[in-house]
Amino acid sequence: MSKERIILVGSGQHARVVLYNLKAQGKYEVACLLDGDPKKIGTTFEGIEVAGTYDDLDAIRQKYDTNKFFIAFGNMKYRKKVFDQFISQGWEAVNIIHPNAVVSEDAKIGQGVLIECGCLITPNPVIGNNVVVNTGSQVNHDNIVEDNVYIASGVVLSGGVHIKENTLLDDGVIVTLGVTVPPNSIFGAGTIITKSYEEPGVYYGIPSKKIR
Amino acid sequence: MSKERIILVGSGQHARVVLYNLKAQGKYEVACLLDGDPKKIGTTFEGIEVAGTYDDLDAIRQKYDTNKFFIAFGNMKYRKKVFDQFISQGWEAVNIIHPNAVVSEDAKIGQGVLIECGCLITPNPVIGNNVVVNTGSQVNHDNIVEDNVYIASGVVLSGGVHIKENTLLDDGVIVTLGVTVPPNSIFGAGTIITKSYEEPGVYYGIPSKKIR
Amino acid sequence: MSKERIILVGSGQHARVVLYNLKAQGKYEVACLLDGDPKKIGTTFEGIEVAGTYDDLDAIRQKYDTNKFFIAFGNMKYRKKVFDQFISQGWEAVNIIHPNAVVSEDAKIGQGVLIECGCLITPNPVIGNNVVVNTGSQVNHDNIVEDNVYIASGVVLSGGVHIKENTLLDDGVIVTLGVTVPPNSIFGAGTIITKSYEEPGVYYGIPSKKIR
Repeated sequence: MSKERIILVGSGQHARVVLYNLKAQGKYEVACLLDGDPKKIGTTFEGIEVAGTYDDLDAIRQKYDTNKFFIAFGNMKYRKKVFDQFISQGWEAVNIIHPNAVVSEDAKIGQGVLIECGCLITPNPVIGNNVVVNTGSQVNHDNIVEDNVYIASGVVLSGGVHIKENTLLDDGVIVTLGVTVPPNSIFGAGTIITKSYEEPGVYYGIPSKKIR
Repeated sequence: MSKERIILVGSGQHARVVLYNLKAQGKYEVACLLDGDPKKIGTTFEGIEVAGTYDDLDAIRQKYDTNKFFIAFGNMKYRKKVFDQFISQGWEAVNIIHPNAVVSEDAKIGQGVLIECGCLITPNPVIGNNVVVNTGSQVNHDNIVEDNVYIASGVVLSGGVHIKENTLLDDGVIVTLGVTVPPNSIFGAGTIITKSYEEPGVYYGIPSKKIR
Repeated sequence: MSKERIILVGSGQHARVVLYNLKAQGKYEVACLLDGDPKKIGTTFEGIEVAGTYDDLDAIRQKYDTNKFFIAFGNMKYRKKVFDQFISQGWEAVNIIHPNAVVSEDAKIGQGVLIECGCLITPNPVIGNNVVVNTGSQVNHDNIVEDNVYIASGVVLSGGVHIKENTLLDDGVIVTLGVTVPPNSIFGAGTIITKSYEEPGVYYGIPSKKIR
């Protein structure tokens, strides 16, 4: 079985993580890397060439004969923007799922989603596009995780949780039963979220408080 | 191999979780659901009929030709009561253990126990009857977990821990080495329990404090 | 395939944990136990004889025809000291890794390392000698974990973390992206470490503070 060729977008530590999961999954091979920083063009990362920026995606598509991509950087300022740029130009994002992750058959998962080792995706969740579920994190029954959410490591979403778009849940965040988390927000490491919020912001602590 | 028929007690979100784990285990099939709410009789949940309440368990046993059951609702007010009602009428509870869970060979496990995916049950623990160990939780060496304890997701019981009966440990609770946790209590999400308590109550925080 | 004989050093609860992981790994068999307490000589633990203290390691080596050992007690006051004593007398420490742990191929792992079930060791970490990674803990990409570090259960080290030597991270500690943790220190259960420290000490809380 030949592997499908994809383009990875990013060439830093998160790209290393993506490459590790991609290799474990065994479904894709990386044609080249892209990076927003033109100075990186021509360098290599983990033995793979950084072939360009995102300025001329048509040329990249033609040269590497693929329109499949994956966002492989972590910076929340640009993850949505760059993802949307690819999609608007006709590219298709793949899903990278470590074989050690447990994913329920009925999970509805979008495109451009990373699910790392140790993750538990239990029955009946909906996960949007361009979502990261980092090592050992849980998306449990009847959860909704909207587009561009970044779930760091060791995060627990209890049942019936709703995480709105573009929000970052840092390492070890716990969201308790039935809680809704606002969009465009940051929840600091170890925050315990026991009630729903509507207002975007930066939240932290036990119990969680809006700090900005 | 034909699967053994059991009755599930409950028809809400926790029942969905139980059905997911039961299917992954591959050992039992569900003859029908029961629910305390008579209005649900005749409805279906996940394609399975809600056949009755718990008022006439003999009729249920006869009609479905099984005396095996499993408590598939989460409400701590009724889990012990309904479990005891079935047992007192000669029913037998089964254990539902996700194949992804790691369970040490020498673990002593009662009946009516749910152990979900990602759980780690390491050497020499004793787990009582009607216990839930939710996703990604750990019951470690030389632990004692008494009857009707509910361990939510991402909970860590360190070594030599003793959890007394009917207590709820909510998501992300950590119980440190050698600590004893009182019966009939609730420990809120994210609570870090670093010393033993005797008095039942509601506990919360880091470090844990009795708040009610 | 015959298993390789090793000597375990310790005969308490942590030795039980080591024996459990060793059996699951299936690579080593235990010739005997040693214990610092001479009163334990001649007793058995989990069916294995406590054959001596550490006073005459040459006699032990000759009698049991092995120079392979593993530290199987948890007390941080003595783990480094006893480990160094064995090494200085020409012994070699083995690694005990539960087959359920996920360990990236490119992880650089020293000797005398225990990695328990549910652990995630993701790409490009360096782990020193005589390190414990307890149940369900994560050593993530680009981490450095120095010699004699003890990582308890449910600990999350985010990416690019550096844990200096002889430090104990108790259950549920979270170390966020890029943080450096000082040597010879104790971080209490559930501590969230969001910034780097240089001074050894006892740290606790959310956010972490030096308390001694």
